[in-house]
Amino acid sequence: MITKLEELCKQAQNSGKKAIIAGSNDTHVLEAVKDAKQLNIIEPIFIGDRKKTEQCASTVNFNISNFEIIDCQSESQIAQKAVELMHQDKADILIKGLINTAVILKWVLNKDYNLNTGNLLSHVALMEIPSYHKLIFISDVALNIAPDLEQKASIVLNSIILANKLGYEKPKVALISSNEKVSLKLESSVDAAILAKMGDRGVFGPCIIDGPLALDIAISKEALDQKGIKSQVNGDADILIVPHIDAGNVLYKSLIHFASAETAGVIVGSRKPVVVTSRADSAKSKLYSIALSSLL
Amino acid sequence: MITKLEELCKQAQNSGKKAIIAGSNDTHVLEAVKDAKQLNIIEPIFIGDRKKTEQCASTVNFNISNFEIIDCQSESQIAQKAVELMHQDKADILIKGLINTAVILKWVLNKDYNLNTGNLLSHVALMEIPSYHKLIFISDVALNIAPDLEQKASIVLNSIILANKLGYEKPKVALISSNEKVSLKLESSVDAAILAKMGDRGVFGPCIIDGPLALDIAISKEALDQKGIKSQVNGDADILIVPHIDAGNVLYKSLIHFASAETAGVIVGSRKPVVVTSRADSAKSKLYSIALSSLL
Repeated sequence: MITKLEELCKQAQNSGKKAIIAGSNDTHVLEAVKDAKQLNIIEPIFIGDRKKTEQCASTVNFNISNFEIIDCQSESQIAQKAVELMHQDKADILIKGLINTAVILKWVLNKDYNLNTGNLLSHVALMEIPSYHKLIFISDVALNIAPDLEQKASIVLNSIILANKLGYEKPKVALISSNEKVSLKLESSVDAAILAKMGDRGVFGPCIIDGPLALDIAISKEALDQKGIKSQVNGDADILIVPHIDAGNVLYKSLIHFASAETAGVIVGSRKPVVVTSRADSAKSKLYSIALSSLL
Repeated sequence: MITKLEELCKQAQNSGKKAIIAGSNDTHVLEAVKDAKQLNIIEPIFIGDRKKTEQCASTVNFNISNFEIIDCQSESQIAQKAVELMHQDKADILIKGLINTAVILKWVLNKDYNLNTGNLLSHVALMEIPSYHKLIFISDVALNIAPDLEQKASIVLNSIILANKLGYEKPKVALISSNEKVSLKLESSVDAAILAKMGDRGVFGPCIIDGPLALDIAISKEALDQKGIKSQVNGDADILIVPHIDAGNVLYKSLIHFASAETAGVIVGSRKPVVVTSRADSAKSKLYSIALSSLL
């Protein structure tokens, strides 16, 4: 079981997975790809403007002369070509470079290619927080804006599948709301109650799932006891499911900016993982994201 | 201008404001009241079960024999009596003890008493985060569940009035959303755009207000520059307005549990402040909340 983000790199080292960099003329992503290549986590294939890609690579001191570069300008063509190669099993991981996320995902979801399994795509962030004793998965902080109940169920399932792959056999899932009481005025609490009961009935496979839980009683046994609440998650959640992107986003950014958290993130739900690093991510975080995706 | 929570106590010391403790048979609140009395921040009046109140006071080693105790059992009567005394200007601050928050607020909002000014009541939390260089106000993390645009405008105004009273003459207000782009699919971003423009037109008085802003670019000039966005708040927000209680609650609890933040909180919008401390609050935080309310 992964307990530190650095272990992602150790486990992924020398896996040499084929990774497509879609929109490869991007210094930020090339830096991370360079790091990942140095550890032999991935074997990159670049798709993008060849000249610009070579310039960016030279800026970050990355010798890419031995790798395949598919020269391509249009965003839509870059995305289509990338997804086509994934479909043909010529690559295992799709890494977004300088290209609109929506364009990439549109092609990932295209039914002519087998990346689309019919599942909802969702983003999972794996957070390492210095003040906290364990890693925490959070979903969805980046992709689905205001998921309905069915979409939330998919988000739960995607995150559990990811945790399973990292060795969490029976992850503890907290369905986050601002209140542990089920209040009919608070949609997140109602949805959490339903999802928790679905989980009890085995819908999500082996897991311990409870909600609605406020953040404090999801991650602190002390807070749980203080409030006198009983929860199978027992203040020891592995996975936090947030009810809305606004809630997830402030939590994610609060952890990074105020609690010095490092993170690895990946989009799951497609047949193969998609990495969407953000310019604001630290260099470490970008590398961890690639390593994480290579383990899936 | 207040820059550390401890300054709240220093400024409030010896102000000797009359404070009503509604539902006074509560050891947690009595501990905070004892601390506040020792600094002569408040002069308490207790309303609640006399015997139980005396027992609780003795548990926390608080000699209350010289203070007024109004013997009263029923929650509704406790709340009514408390609000009546506030209405008659026999007290300046209302502190919730062991009594349902909804019951207290129902009486605060009762139009027969002049605490109800017709304004929305909202909660403001003032956060001191060790990893951050300044205090931050956050609203509303505790009271209004899913405020509509009109309620959000009141939440903004209430928080600015509070900041003004603490010496922030022209506070910088960030309207938080998960995205800085105005996306018509993301309600928080649309509302933020409207509120920001209202602010530009002077609706909220002297302040610098901008949104939608994601948390990172609201509180980090570096993140703002990295994303290439221009904002008058300039990554240096004094006040964060969250779009929904779920977003506020995870932010608040993340700061406390993962970033070791201390906090002071108060309900504003009524003619006189109401303090609603939670059992989960630290002893310091409860004292700070009382000190904060005594400065309003």
